[in-house]
Amino acid sequence: MSVKISDIGKAVLETEYAVRGPIVARAQELERDGRAVIYCNIGNPQALGQAPLSWTRRILALCEYPTLAIEAPGSFPTDAVAAARALLAGSKHGIGAYSESKGLKVVRDAVASFITRRDGIAADPDAIFLTDGASKGVQAALRLMLAGPDDGIMIPIPQYPLYSATITMYEGRQVGYYLDEERDWAVSRELLENAIAGAKEAGVRTKAIVVINPGNPTGSVLRPDNVKMVIDFAKKHGLAILADEVYQDNVYRDGERFESFAKAMAELGEKDVSLFSFHSTSKGFLGECGQRGGYMEVRNVTPDVMAQILKMQSVSLCANLPGQAAMYSLVSPPPPDGPSKAEYDGERAAILGELKARARLLADGLNAIPGFRCNEVAGAMYAFPRLTLPAGRTDEEWCMALLEKTGICVVPGSGFGQLPGTAHFRTTILPPREKLAEVVKAIAAFNAEYR
Amino acid sequence: MSVKISDIGKAVLETEYAVRGPIVARAQELERDGRAVIYCNIGNPQALGQAPLSWTRRILALCEYPTLAIEAPGSFPTDAVAAARALLAGSKHGIGAYSESKGLKVVRDAVASFITRRDGIAADPDAIFLTDGASKGVQAALRLMLAGPDDGIMIPIPQYPLYSATITMYEGRQVGYYLDEERDWAVSRELLENAIAGAKEAGVRTKAIVVINPGNPTGSVLRPDNVKMVIDFAKKHGLAILADEVYQDNVYRDGERFESFAKAMAELGEKDVSLFSFHSTSKGFLGECGQRGGYMEVRNVTPDVMAQILKMQSVSLCANLPGQAAMYSLVSPPPPDGPSKAEYDGERAAILGELKARARLLADGLNAIPGFRCNEVAGAMYAFPRLTLPAGRTDEEWCMALLEKTGICVVPGSGFGQLPGTAHFRTTILPPREKLAEVVKAIAAFNAEYR
Repeated sequence: MSVKISDIGKAVLETEYAVRGPIVARAQELERDGRAVIYCNIGNPQALGQAPLSWTRRILALCEYPTLAIEAPGSFPTDAVAAARALLAGSKHGIGAYSESKGLKVVRDAVASFITRRDGIAADPDAIFLTDGASKGVQAALRLMLAGPDDGIMIPIPQYPLYSATITMYEGRQVGYYLDEERDWAVSRELLENAIAGAKEAGVRTKAIVVINPGNPTGSVLRPDNVKMVIDFAKKHGLAILADEVYQDNVYRDGERFESFAKAMAELGEKDVSLFSFHSTSKGFLGECGQRGGYMEVRNVTPDVMAQILKMQSVSLCANLPGQAAMYSLVSPPPPDGPSKAEYDGERAAILGELKARARLLADGLNAIPGFRCNEVAGAMYAFPRLTLPAGRTDEEWCMALLEKTGICVVPGSGFGQLPGTAHFRTTILPPREKLAEVVKAIAAFNAEYR
Repeated sequence: MSVKISDIGKAVLETEYAVRGPIVARAQELERDGRAVIYCNIGNPQALGQAPLSWTRRILALCEYPTLAIEAPGSFPTDAVAAARALLAGSKHGIGAYSESKGLKVVRDAVASFITRRDGIAADPDAIFLTDGASKGVQAALRLMLAGPDDGIMIPIPQYPLYSATITMYEGRQVGYYLDEERDWAVSRELLENAIAGAKEAGVRTKAIVVINPGNPTGSVLRPDNVKMVIDFAKKHGLAILADEVYQDNVYRDGERFESFAKAMAELGEKDVSLFSFHSTSKGFLGECGQRGGYMEVRNVTPDVMAQILKMQSVSLCANLPGQAAMYSLVSPPPPDGPSKAEYDGERAAILGELKARARLLADGLNAIPGFRCNEVAGAMYAFPRLTLPAGRTDEEWCMALLEKTGICVVPGSGFGQLPGTAHFRTTILPPREKLAEVVKAIAAFNAEYR
């Protein structure tokens, strides 16, 4: 063969991505052999029964086939038709043509308005890049910043493995900083300073810090003062911030609210720390993972850097247009007096209410298992419980055994990173409540036997 | 600012992408200032008025909003409903969930059947990866093969700049081989051997050869014996082949047919040369650039290499599902006795017939301009005429001046590569015939003055 494994570079060979790693491969094998598998390994709401929002899907159907508004008026409330028409008019050529590399201006304008409504701050549509899901935005930002083999990026431990995988792929250095499990997985200034000092000693030139808020896999929601502390830390060390905010609508703890890095930065009057913020149509109450919609908003970079970002985006031409349209539907909800409003509010509240109930049910259920300890799932879509294992066993082994025995597919803590000597796993909160109760019961029974 | 231009790596800074380069940026500026611009820089059919296929868009609308089949039966022929239902049933969770990293099995099965129908050869659905347009597949294959700074990839000169841009981004070496303009841009064995020998002398380890057939920007269609020659060359030198076949349905010269590398390889009984073939929903008669649908088919690689490809695809989770559905519509046309068949055939023939007429009109028109010489546009969507410039002028200058004077946006030959001392530009054949005639006339008038 002309391509042999020995031809493949270190960067590719060493890349690991646990969320779709060997345990998931084994789950797919079992499923092909007729076993029932419950996929708790990935935040994929519609695969576990969540229905799409009618508002989003009507706009998408109209964008794909615009004459439906005339042929099937009964299926399309006037505000959905108006939204699709505004999008198509702004696109000029419909969703079958390449857009500008940044994405359709009409969608970027809507994203900018959304940020302004959310945070009470100005936003520049020309600093917004529509991407194929948030993953592609994150990869672009990391590609931009990793200029040589000593360049490092601070990532939380535990982290979402997109970060470690992409840093490995671009041959950069990971600078892990531990989240404080004892304080609801908060970011600790002391642990940040330790991490960057250690990296400096090891010859790493740290260029940016990644923060995932609400947290994946931790389920934590950062307090506003914690967000501001990170900004101060970044400023002190000359770091850029990558703010992964894809779970911003998934906040379940009463009285808690999502604080964006953009807002905190505006409050601090900070104009020097470069900020890359990411959002997605895949999470929140849309759960539209398959549409691959996302955006990256860039603040505090010079025009010459912005031009480099644009150039890189242009090599793949543009993000997919249905995903851009899905993002439009997310940032442009129906008008308050529109015929879709009541249905939209009802569907949204049902999804978020259900997720909140599941978050509680799952954390409580896991905490009732002897040897398990799980922080409150305050946000996002995951629980990341700590478990006590028999001596000599790893969480990979535990997860594989769980899968073989029960058909439940979760991801070992080692795939996200964890304090040495501890063991965890990540499971989504997404299965319907009855099923989630079964999952917890099955895990408890399995673990009793495993110990 | 924490990110400065001096923080950006060489790989990013040196990446160039002429198809959306400075001339296009200037065109967008002019347009914002109210000038009419004709975008001939990019193969974006629907931006120049091509209508989407009803078959494709009905399937996409039904996938986005499946109840339409019940609510608006009049809009959906039974075969379109059946196709959408087959796709949704195969997907299990609709198009709002992440699919397998390779893409939906039901779509990969349909792609495999398509290859079998097209070429009369077997195809393995598990060696097919659905991608966000062909670009993402090409980038994956190049990422796989570029393992170190001395690794090189042979690319045609002229080439589509996705290749040069991606090789630069992954810090590999470009090994250009000239296409033979005097012989309708055919691939020449002699020029291939010259190129690889030169690369070897320069210390480059050449790992693969890229062939674009039908040609971009050349508009050529390779003869079957030319395809087989390339396979023989690749075998001799232990190279993999990247076959960019996105224009396979765009063949205009009478009696000519598209010969896939997969078919030629099967005829030769070749089992040792690794082959990566790319297809797209963006070109052909669909012209669905915005949907970002594509696939990569891999042949003759070992299972361990295939596992690396899958792992890399999994880091971005999956290609967008509407794009996967668009690919399904491309490889699964309506059944011969279905109610959509006549309309489908009519739309398809009208689009391809129109493109054929434009290809002829454009090449003839350009050849009538003093100092221009253009090969027949036998396929794809572009003409790449050679032009004689006043001493000391470059084709970039000519293209920029053309834009400023006429509003016509084309890409200079230097963006694709060309024999030193020659000058070219690439223009699409896509504007409607009346407009195309105007374009030719305006170019002729401009060039007369420019000389």
